[in-house]
Amino acid sequence: MKTGAEYRESLRDGRRLFLNGRKVSDLEDEPLLSAGVAEVAAGYDRYYRPGGAVGPYFAFPTTAEELRAQLHELLTWDMTTVTTAQGLQALLTAAARMRADHPEYAARIEAYYDRCKREDVRGVQAITDAKGHRRLSPSQQDDPDLYTRIVERRPDGVVIRGAKMHITAAATSHELVVMPTKRMKPGEEDWAVACAVPANAPGVSIINTTYAPRGAASGEDERYWPHSSHHNMPEGFLVFDDVFVPNERVFLAGEVGHSATFAHALGLWERLGGTAHLAEIGDVLTGFAQLIAEANGLDRVSHIREKISEMVMYATLVRAGLEAAISNAEKSPEGWMFPSELYTNAAKHFGAAEFSRMVRHLHDIGGGAILTAPSPDDLASPETGAYVRKYMRTMEGVDAEYRSRLFHAIRDYTADTFGGWQHVTMLQSGGGLYAQRMVSSKHYDMATAKRMALEIAGLA
Amino acid sequence: MKTGAEYRESLRDGRRLFLNGRKVSDLEDEPLLSAGVAEVAAGYDRYYRPGGAVGPYFAFPTTAEELRAQLHELLTWDMTTVTTAQGLQALLTAAARMRADHPEYAARIEAYYDRCKREDVRGVQAITDAKGHRRLSPSQQDDPDLYTRIVERRPDGVVIRGAKMHITAAATSHELVVMPTKRMKPGEEDWAVACAVPANAPGVSIINTTYAPRGAASGEDERYWPHSSHHNMPEGFLVFDDVFVPNERVFLAGEVGHSATFAHALGLWERLGGTAHLAEIGDVLTGFAQLIAEANGLDRVSHIREKISEMVMYATLVRAGLEAAISNAEKSPEGWMFPSELYTNAAKHFGAAEFSRMVRHLHDIGGGAILTAPSPDDLASPETGAYVRKYMRTMEGVDAEYRSRLFHAIRDYTADTFGGWQHVTMLQSGGGLYAQRMVSSKHYDMATAKRMALEIAGLA
Amino acid sequence: MKTGAEYRESLRDGRRLFLNGRKVSDLEDEPLLSAGVAEVAAGYDRYYRPGGAVGPYFAFPTTAEELRAQLHELLTWDMTTVTTAQGLQALLTAAARMRADHPEYAARIEAYYDRCKREDVRGVQAITDAKGHRRLSPSQQDDPDLYTRIVERRPDGVVIRGAKMHITAAATSHELVVMPTKRMKPGEEDWAVACAVPANAPGVSIINTTYAPRGAASGEDERYWPHSSHHNMPEGFLVFDDVFVPNERVFLAGEVGHSATFAHALGLWERLGGTAHLAEIGDVLTGFAQLIAEANGLDRVSHIREKISEMVMYATLVRAGLEAAISNAEKSPEGWMFPSELYTNAAKHFGAAEFSRMVRHLHDIGGGAILTAPSPDDLASPETGAYVRKYMRTMEGVDAEYRSRLFHAIRDYTADTFGGWQHVTMLQSGGGLYAQRMVSSKHYDMATAKRMALEIAGLA
Amino acid sequence: MKTGAEYRESLRDGRRLFLNGRKVSDLEDEPLLSAGVAEVAAGYDRYYRPGGAVGPYFAFPTTAEELRAQLHELLTWDMTTVTTAQGLQALLTAAARMRADHPEYAARIEAYYDRCKREDVRGVQAITDAKGHRRLSPSQQDDPDLYTRIVERRPDGVVIRGAKMHITAAATSHELVVMPTKRMKPGEEDWAVACAVPANAPGVSIINTTYAPRGAASGEDERYWPHSSHHNMPEGFLVFDDVFVPNERVFLAGEVGHSATFAHALGLWERLGGTAHLAEIGDVLTGFAQLIAEANGLDRVSHIREKISEMVMYATLVRAGLEAAISNAEKSPEGWMFPSELYTNAAKHFGAAEFSRMVRHLHDIGGGAILTAPSPDDLASPETGAYVRKYMRTMEGVDAEYRSRLFHAIRDYTADTFGGWQHVTMLQSGGGLYAQRMVSSKHYDMATAKRMALEIAGLA
Repeated sequence: MKTGAEYRESLRDGRRLFLNGRKVSDLEDEPLLSAGVAEVAAGYDRYYRPGGAVGPYFAFPTTAEELRAQLHELLTWDMTTVTTAQGLQALLTAAARMRADHPEYAARIEAYYDRCKREDVRGVQAITDAKGHRRLSPSQQDDPDLYTRIVERRPDGVVIRGAKMHITAAATSHELVVMPTKRMKPGEEDWAVACAVPANAPGVSIINTTYAPRGAASGEDERYWPHSSHHNMPEGFLVFDDVFVPNERVFLAGEVGHSATFAHALGLWERLGGTAHLAEIGDVLTGFAQLIAEANGLDRVSHIREKISEMVMYATLVRAGLEAAISNAEKSPEGWMFPSELYTNAAKHFGAAEFSRMVRHLHDIGGGAILTAPSPDDLASPETGAYVRKYMRTMEGVDAEYRSRLFHAIRDYTADTFGGWQHVTMLQSGGGLYAQRMVSSKHYDMATAKRMALEIAGLA
Repeated sequence: MKTGAEYRESLRDGRRLFLNGRKVSDLEDEPLLSAGVAEVAAGYDRYYRPGGAVGPYFAFPTTAEELRAQLHELLTWDMTTVTTAQGLQALLTAAARMRADHPEYAARIEAYYDRCKREDVRGVQAITDAKGHRRLSPSQQDDPDLYTRIVERRPDGVVIRGAKMHITAAATSHELVVMPTKRMKPGEEDWAVACAVPANAPGVSIINTTYAPRGAASGEDERYWPHSSHHNMPEGFLVFDDVFVPNERVFLAGEVGHSATFAHALGLWERLGGTAHLAEIGDVLTGFAQLIAEANGLDRVSHIREKISEMVMYATLVRAGLEAAISNAEKSPEGWMFPSELYTNAAKHFGAAEFSRMVRHLHDIGGGAILTAPSPDDLASPETGAYVRKYMRTMEGVDAEYRSRLFHAIRDYTADTFGGWQHVTMLQSGGGLYAQRMVSSKHYDMATAKRMALEIAGLA
Repeated sequence: MKTGAEYRESLRDGRRLFLNGRKVSDLEDEPLLSAGVAEVAAGYDRYYRPGGAVGPYFAFPTTAEELRAQLHELLTWDMTTVTTAQGLQALLTAAARMRADHPEYAARIEAYYDRCKREDVRGVQAITDAKGHRRLSPSQQDDPDLYTRIVERRPDGVVIRGAKMHITAAATSHELVVMPTKRMKPGEEDWAVACAVPANAPGVSIINTTYAPRGAASGEDERYWPHSSHHNMPEGFLVFDDVFVPNERVFLAGEVGHSATFAHALGLWERLGGTAHLAEIGDVLTGFAQLIAEANGLDRVSHIREKISEMVMYATLVRAGLEAAISNAEKSPEGWMFPSELYTNAAKHFGAAEFSRMVRHLHDIGGGAILTAPSPDDLASPETGAYVRKYMRTMEGVDAEYRSRLFHAIRDYTADTFGGWQHVTMLQSGGGLYAQRMVSSKHYDMATAKRMALEIAGLA
Repeated sequence: MKTGAEYRESLRDGRRLFLNGRKVSDLEDEPLLSAGVAEVAAGYDRYYRPGGAVGPYFAFPTTAEELRAQLHELLTWDMTTVTTAQGLQALLTAAARMRADHPEYAARIEAYYDRCKREDVRGVQAITDAKGHRRLSPSQQDDPDLYTRIVERRPDGVVIRGAKMHITAAATSHELVVMPTKRMKPGEEDWAVACAVPANAPGVSIINTTYAPRGAASGEDERYWPHSSHHNMPEGFLVFDDVFVPNERVFLAGEVGHSATFAHALGLWERLGGTAHLAEIGDVLTGFAQLIAEANGLDRVSHIREKISEMVMYATLVRAGLEAAISNAEKSPEGWMFPSELYTNAAKHFGAAEFSRMVRHLHDIGGGAILTAPSPDDLASPETGAYVRKYMRTMEGVDAEYRSRLFHAIRDYTADTFGGWQHVTMLQSGGGLYAQRMVSSKHYDMATAKRMALEIAGLA
């Protein structure tokens, strides 16, 4: 296993990173990116065991209990580690589904998985293509590169070209696992490509955006953004400019019948993880609502209690969906537990669709001071500190600092740059609302539902 | 165990029943009440085993698996049997909670439970009082009988007076289990009364209302109400006009500290059963929506599919809540499994609150013919049958009879007398929305949620 | 103008009516149909003026104020009169739109309108076809009659065949105004037919369904259904079995370019009237909620007040939409005021979509006694009356009769046969939710909205 | 009237401003505050007319048409001008309501209004107090200053102490109009204080927070925040540290019977303006959704169209409420038009409550590139520009720059610092959701609604 220091060093591998039009030569020198590195490094240190130990994020659950335990633990991992685990589970899931038809791909995936585990690397899934005109298929686009494709096939590998978008944590990972974004049709063999590319492979560029708070550089400090100043990850826009991929890293190269296998497998694991995350966020939002209601003396007011009880319901129902996904998990021939597609998708959909309403409840309860609480520096200043201390406190036991920090945290978490990122990400992670709805419908037992209705109608 | 015939005979016990201002001397002679008797009798016959066998509705689950299995089976029981099982589980739950303080009550309950089981009787829970002015406590009402109370204490028992409302299936049951509708305060000892009263005890009157279809009597037939003509139960308005209850049937008589124990215990089991029922209803509504969309050739239309997918989500989330309630059940010292209050209440609330929106989806998809499909007699008539056959069919394989019967079933189930009953009952069974919300909130782990929020804020 | 007696007599014109498989020879002898006749007749008497007077339902508003006044008055008309007014307004609207291309049709419509006015007749719009497989056009159906069509063209008129569904009040009207249900394409000329047919024309059959309460015939009385026993109208399933229509009654006969003109015109007026009706219903539901909360002593409870305030919002927003539709009405060259399509459709959609949630609030507030309040006969009975009087009262000033009648009215209005009819009709009248959404979108000023967004983006 | 240059100069009046713990000596030197000054100055220049002209923001509408026109124009004003107009309208409204009891206050207000108009100043309403423990009244707080109060009464004026929160644009205004935040009870005379204080009065401090983008200072530019870099206003936390207010500026000083008069008057005008703003925002969100759907080739996809149609409905219903508020405006004895409280509050509530769902639709439609579109500098960079140009375009006519700028604008407007500010502000401006609900309910014609329900029940 790697230590945090080894991880930090491993990122200095010649990768081409960009931010705001500038080339980033060292991630740790860039204030808007360094927090991500620090967080992943801390994770390495936390899990480090000498000798041949293996990180728990490489384990594939084989019982419902292991699945539950892993989901619980996942909430403590940094985002890069989460994507590593989900990506490898998705790859193994795809291997299981391709084994009969394409044993060589399954074998390559398993060898790749072993290597990742052995080298304790971190990886991301590069799935969303540029896509161009959304209603046209890859081969109909006016630029064939709008979906990532094979531009050359060599005896020892393939050359790929294209871009992959919204790749969280790409800049802080070692491996980029490319997979098709959707089902390809016969004639679209060149777009049916899955493979693993090192982040520093020649031809790879990563253009980053980030929700890291900008203010640190302008004199404000982390107390104003208590969460996002420590917890932020860049989003990568990946460009593959004729990148060579050797055969042992190629997992699909033209077999359109399996072009959607990877996306489906990834979707399941991403949505499962996303649901676990939403349940946790539901608790956090509820906790904030209760804390600020108490700090304001509003916790026994009827309409406030009703709103908090709706937040309780939300967190509980998302978690119920997770429970049902686990207790209805099914075992593959390999002995791996796959969570229920039906419950996973339904819970993820509910959590995502109702997220903004829960934030609305929190904003409704918390009030305008979420935005207008004086900054930590105002509290510390000799000129204004006394005023803030006097007027931001509310009662015995609720002083200005405590209450202001609650407001700053709520703003940071829900109503500032990171909050905006959450609003979009909750909806889009693991595919948008529509996709989750359709997957749930596909796995619903409609035949039984129809039979039940026919019985009521006396038509069974 | 009793046979159906024995059950029918057992109802001829002198009970005082009323319907629409008339005394009902024999339930089976009253068209609006006889279906209920027939349904319960059929249940007796289905479960009958000679010798000392015991009906499965008397079993208290001791493992999560037994709990799941019983909930599955419960959906096949008639309402009277459901209330019997829930009522006895509630009584035993109360016994468990009173054992330490009042062992004599616990012992009486267990003896009563044994007798019910041995005699294979059916019973209902009589909980909702007349209540008078809702914001006043029992002792503040201008008529002290607005909450059922003890009017006389004798060495061998108590005399009670009051009314209990919304008692489904009271007329078709043997036992009326009286319990306080809410927490009583010191000084309200006379209202803290729980006991079991035979349906034919002197002083008991049962005034019935029903959602049984009226049309049968006016020349229309069961094909127009395919569900409710066979599945209907009277709602009883129970009056206790100075009814004597012997001590062995008295389970609480003044101990205000336990006045809410029964209601809480009943609430849990009623809501659990209600959630199972809602999950089933979610499937039925979804099945109807899919069937009618197919019959109309609309099942591939995008906005129709979206609506059906919302119904799928609904049924799935209610069921997820049930799953979570079961997999988080806890064992009592007696070895009995109690489902999770948190998940049970959250799922029941969600199912109840969203029920009318699901019916709206079905009505939106099905269209006006839910109301206007010609009656079965119009289809059979020589004068109009050919017209109906020609114009109510839609395509090869979807003829007028099939499609009309679907419409009649949807109307009967959701948009006629029974449908109206469902709209109100889904909300009110097991207590209204507000109560479910508050119980969920009470059992939510708010301390953890607050701690999680404090960690985000850096205040942990 | 006609008196009520003349109207009653005019219905004895040989029309072929059916109900539950039986031929109805006299509407007034049929308990399930006679209330509708009585209601229309009462309207005739109310408006009757001797001499050449004309009913106000024949007036086409020429100012916003007249439009507002007519909508207010419309709420007091019986359904047959409403459909008469809306149908003629729709016909005149269509005439205005066809005048340039087809002056002869415009002239016939105006002559027809004059005659209707002069003879003070009542009419309905027969628009919804049988439709068969919904995704196939009329000419693709396996039975060409699934959309009403011309089967023969003669010098003096046309012969039509087909069925029209959901025609409220057809049996109690004189005129059936046939119009195409949707846009026809070239090659579908025979289905592009609009005309006016007398209800007693040879070949016309009307198969009726009704939400009139069945119970009157079985011994229960109108106090149990205080609204629907007096206010019910049959829904007609109209069959045109080769009906000859003379030229002066033919308003379209093959001009596919105008096949949708009638439906669009009718949609506007139906939705406007529907919105007025929904605003009124919103008030009624709110009024019931407040009355029952007061009767139960709950009107000052916070969560009850919140629910009632949501009902207030609903009624107010629907009415706001109506106000905006009127104040943004536009004048046609004829001087007629057409309400705003945008606001009319948006308001109708909102009112329809949220209706079931408002009913849910009422049921949530009212409680189970909506279903289980003892019947009026139980209150009157010497055996049970005293019990009902004692236990259904709640406080000084709220006696059992008043409170029970409130419950019966709420049940009748929202949770019994008529209530079910309302649930479906609110959604389906004037076309379903999807249609209203699309019409609103079509009339929305998207160009301005896009320009505003581009300005924000600095791209204008 | 003042020019922009005169306005800029007028702010250099010794006012004590703070930001992030630092004293701000000149607003225009502070990057996070200067945009607000520039915007107000531009407004001065735009309206400037030499001589004795008066800005249109000082006009009080006297007809419904003037009211509609002013609301339309208001959308083009900067925030400081909006608050000036609303604040003065609120003061005049209060004057009208106090005239009978306290003619001297009415006279002072009118004199103050004349002076503001003559000097063309800008002002804000300082209403929200620190509040302390929300369930305790001002006199019950452990610090009496938690509500602003009179600490000394002198012959020539009063001395006030306290803080006022969430005062948008205080730093860029001349006048701070203090008013009580809620109804005071007898015994709370010292807290019943309304008055006008110059921003630079001795004892006044303004501690600012802002949603101005921080990035400009760290090398990023306005193209990344196209809206908020130009349109931002500081939020002021106002401290009155024993500020003397001369009598002619005192509008209430102890008359508790009128303590709520100001807040009610302000609420009406703020909510009216807020509704106009929400209608505009509804259009902007809808415009963005349509633009990005078109840019992605998704505008004809059914589920996208449905979502956009919901946004159309939203914008239309909010505007309908505005229309109804205007067309139901009532004239005061002074000849001033007051918009309908009922419609204003209902529309504001609807707009505020549904705002976050509309943003959700936009995020759902727009996709992850709202967050991850490369920055303008990446597009301009020689190293990455070609990649961005190639992969961010979608089709002929939709190039990378156009599409990226749409994404940046959507992020800036809804999913970054300003977006978070909007989420909270939409809910809180003019009082939270609960307040709007209660005001609507208060002005609803419940008596008529009850009468209508009683008629249905046959109890009228």
